[in-house]
Amino acid sequence: MAVEQRVAERMAKDMKEISISEFFEKNRHLLGYENSTKALITIVKEAVDNSLDGCDEAGILPNIVVTLKQIGVDRFKIVAEDNGPGIVESKIPFAFGKMLFGSKFHRLKQSRGTQGIGISGAILYSQLTTGKPAKIISSTGGKIHEFELMIDTVQNEPSVASHITHTNKERWHGIKIELEAEGNYIERYQSIPEYLRQTAIANPYAHIVYNGPNGTLKFDRTTNIVPKQPKEIKPHPYGIELGILRRMLAMTRTKNLRAFLMRDFTRVGSRSAEQIFRLAKLESSRKPKSLDAEESERLHKSLQMVKLIAPPTNCLSPLTEQLIENGLKKELNAEYFVAVTRPPSVYRGNPFQVEVGLAYGGDLNPNSAAILYRFANKVPLLYHQSSCAITKSVEAVDWKRYGFQHPNSSVPVGPLVILVHFASVWVPFTSEGKQAIATYPAIMKDIKLALQDAGRKLAKFVRQKKQARDKQLRRQLFERYIPELAGSLSKLTKKEKNSIISNLEEIIKAGGSRISESKKIKKEKEE
Amino acid sequence: MAVEQRVAERMAKDMKEISISEFFEKNRHLLGYENSTKALITIVKEAVDNSLDGCDEAGILPNIVVTLKQIGVDRFKIVAEDNGPGIVESKIPFAFGKMLFGSKFHRLKQSRGTQGIGISGAILYSQLTTGKPAKIISSTGGKIHEFELMIDTVQNEPSVASHITHTNKERWHGIKIELEAEGNYIERYQSIPEYLRQTAIANPYAHIVYNGPNGTLKFDRTTNIVPKQPKEIKPHPYGIELGILRRMLAMTRTKNLRAFLMRDFTRVGSRSAEQIFRLAKLESSRKPKSLDAEESERLHKSLQMVKLIAPPTNCLSPLTEQLIENGLKKELNAEYFVAVTRPPSVYRGNPFQVEVGLAYGGDLNPNSAAILYRFANKVPLLYHQSSCAITKSVEAVDWKRYGFQHPNSSVPVGPLVILVHFASVWVPFTSEGKQAIATYPAIMKDIKLALQDAGRKLAKFVRQKKQARDKQLRRQLFERYIPELAGSLSKLTKKEKNSIISNLEEIIKAGGSRISESKKIKKEKEE
Repeated sequence: MAVEQRVAERMAKDMKEISISEFFEKNRHLLGYENSTKALITIVKEAVDNSLDGCDEAGILPNIVVTLKQIGVDRFKIVAEDNGPGIVESKIPFAFGKMLFGSKFHRLKQSRGTQGIGISGAILYSQLTTGKPAKIISSTGGKIHEFELMIDTVQNEPSVASHITHTNKERWHGIKIELEAEGNYIERYQSIPEYLRQTAIANPYAHIVYNGPNGTLKFDRTTNIVPKQPKEIKPHPYGIELGILRRMLAMTRTKNLRAFLMRDFTRVGSRSAEQIFRLAKLESSRKPKSLDAEESERLHKSLQMVKLIAPPTNCLSPLTEQLIENGLKKELNAEYFVAVTRPPSVYRGNPFQVEVGLAYGGDLNPNSAAILYRFANKVPLLYHQSSCAITKSVEAVDWKRYGFQHPNSSVPVGPLVILVHFASVWVPFTSEGKQAIATYPAIMKDIKLALQDAGRKLAKFVRQKKQARDKQLRRQLFERYIPELAGSLSKLTKKEKNSIISNLEEIIKAGGSRISESKKIKKEKEE
Repeated sequence: MAVEQRVAERMAKDMKEISISEFFEKNRHLLGYENSTKALITIVKEAVDNSLDGCDEAGILPNIVVTLKQIGVDRFKIVAEDNGPGIVESKIPFAFGKMLFGSKFHRLKQSRGTQGIGISGAILYSQLTTGKPAKIISSTGGKIHEFELMIDTVQNEPSVASHITHTNKERWHGIKIELEAEGNYIERYQSIPEYLRQTAIANPYAHIVYNGPNGTLKFDRTTNIVPKQPKEIKPHPYGIELGILRRMLAMTRTKNLRAFLMRDFTRVGSRSAEQIFRLAKLESSRKPKSLDAEESERLHKSLQMVKLIAPPTNCLSPLTEQLIENGLKKELNAEYFVAVTRPPSVYRGNPFQVEVGLAYGGDLNPNSAAILYRFANKVPLLYHQSSCAITKSVEAVDWKRYGFQHPNSSVPVGPLVILVHFASVWVPFTSEGKQAIATYPAIMKDIKLALQDAGRKLAKFVRQKKQARDKQLRRQLFERYIPELAGSLSKLTKKEKNSIISNLEEIIKAGGSRISESKKIKKEKEE
């Protein structure tokens, strides 16, 4: 046998499937566990994100309690409990002990989690660093189920160590998860308190209690209104990929192309459908499954050429301008607040919506770089700021136009906080750890537009403020010389000095405002 | 039924497994397909990396031909062929049409690919953007097998459209892959030619031909020696995680702890084993499976406390200092070249080795930021430079000590090319697209040490060059005044002018070298 053949056969013998858990066990940094400080934050984040999603889903006002206790030099016990709908008994082991398992991946609807990786990743990290099982306690209102489980990484299946049930007289529902993990605890900058503080800004209807190693932090709810639950939608034809279209054609339950377009997509009416068929040179009565490669491609091209209205917004749950302003006002002592919610847009068939909030002046440091709060589907992003589409969009805006210093390829300098919320049925994160948004051009464009819109409003305020100050200065200057001037005029004209003074004061007031008005108009024309 | 229960049951019904192919279909940016320019580069990279790995594995001098042809406005046909060992018939569909499938994931040995994701990712992107199957032709020397296949993303299984066989009179072996994909072609900066050029630097034994849209590029091999094939090793006890240790204890075939430590790990001899057992207060005759959680933890701690020699280097295949210098000399017209290969080190139980090459002066621009070539297991990294451990290490070194300008948190400025090669049995990439190395502290530390070592050598050269120039200038200055001075001295002393001139010249020569010697010693002490 030739050497190549022997090598090929040896390699063939070694070839096998790799379980997704084994993959993330080796690549735990992809999930946010590259160091023990970040690990603790990631665990808390995964638990809290799931709790908020669960409560949203059931329309429950969230009550979340997170407890973190140091139990060794570099070891912590983390407990997170919510009052959500809970998980039915049979699914508990899989929801926590199997990766790529969940209810949110296959639907188009805004939610915090989607991947079915987050919380099982936390359990994976826990067992990797401490060798101990996780404890999951849950009830949907009936019996309380208590599981101790680990992940069998070779199989990517839950391995249940124990399962006991408790009676539930109080009809408690929710999830409580207890983990031990290696960690390092900090409270400043990128930290659990900071993550919870920003979470509270974007989720003011949540009540969150944090029992940390140095005491308790409470984030009270500032509203009792649960945001309207977003609706699941069909994909929008814009930006849908040919490969996805072909799979949809092969798997649809519809009998003809007309029904396929109108039922399996959003925003295709009968008139648009007719237009598409004309462009694609296809009969509307054709069976979807019967289209060959070339015909599918024609259909695909035509879908992009027809004018369709934007996707419905009810699959999205924006923060709203009001809430952004309130959230910033609660946290920051600034002079001016402005928020902008853009109309929804589409990338790769996925609807998304961008919101921006700015806080300016007051206690904010005028000489430091602007502070950036990034959110994706109401979840604060604390890491990987420099590789995030939000940061790159902030850097790409010309902040000098709005009166800020703006060093090349960085954020502007000034007394400014910039909040950006990206809401989408599918957030394209740069890694499974979900800390930065990928730089898709369609997304960057919308973030920039929102920033510019808010920037213009802020600039107007700053300008008016500056004009008011200038006017004030001018007036003070004139006023200082009025008595002297009036004295001279009085001698020349033989009129009474006091009436000259009040006349001069009148002139200054009127002239000042006339000047600033005309300047303002000129400046706006320049923009 | 309470609302929570209804919601929980509805959610339970929606819960299901997510296939890894579906996951990457939605998250194709994780694999390097976030835009159509990068997509073409990624496809070529995945094919070439696999070809080089295959040839290495069989000890074959690689002949690789890549052809890229534009066949539509934004559509390309990519063909990549090698002379490697090929893949046995039964495994072809899985190696190309199933994600997380491969021979390299479970072993500890340096190779370019490891994840079993790369080439199937290219096929996934191809079918997503064109809806067309990929063609795979392979032989191990017997019959030639030709497959047309796609990936069934719902199942993560290959879907074979056709399979035909050809006779193979010439006993060809290798793999040829043909894909169509959406793309955008460029030839500058981050591009296919640049990727191949850097690949040729790190793989001088490979012959690579590239038939691009604008003509043919040839990269001839500069050596006929295939690097020694690295050996598979057992894990090293340093940095191994408790969870992994517990799994190893549960799954080992050894009968007692003594055999477990000595056979399932590298670098544990009988003396180290005894030491470990003493520290862990465990009997060496204990059955590995019998250890409880607490005992495993004691064993784990003790493993980290015993002094063990570094892991064997034969699992790694460094470029070598010689090859780095040759590679840089071939590509760059510089004045001075230096290379440093560090001794191997360990992170999380994985051996790794860092190499650095510097090229200085000559045609390199003295006023621009240093150019950085990053390599991981001989593969050039073109993207995500700012988030890579290599870049962060370069930024963290104090280049001012080596005579360079060094703006805060960026690369140094000067006529400098910095090449860094990170070789490991497991490279912790920041995403599946494998373009940047995660910032593990142990890795950053070793890269910095290698950079500092090379930096000191370079600084010595730069200093000597500067001293030589200073000396030269000094001499020229003195020499200009010697005749005049000698004339005056001659008049004063009544000695012959010419002999005074030659005496003065002697003094200048000796004095010059004495001065520069003492300066040199002083400077080195400062370091």
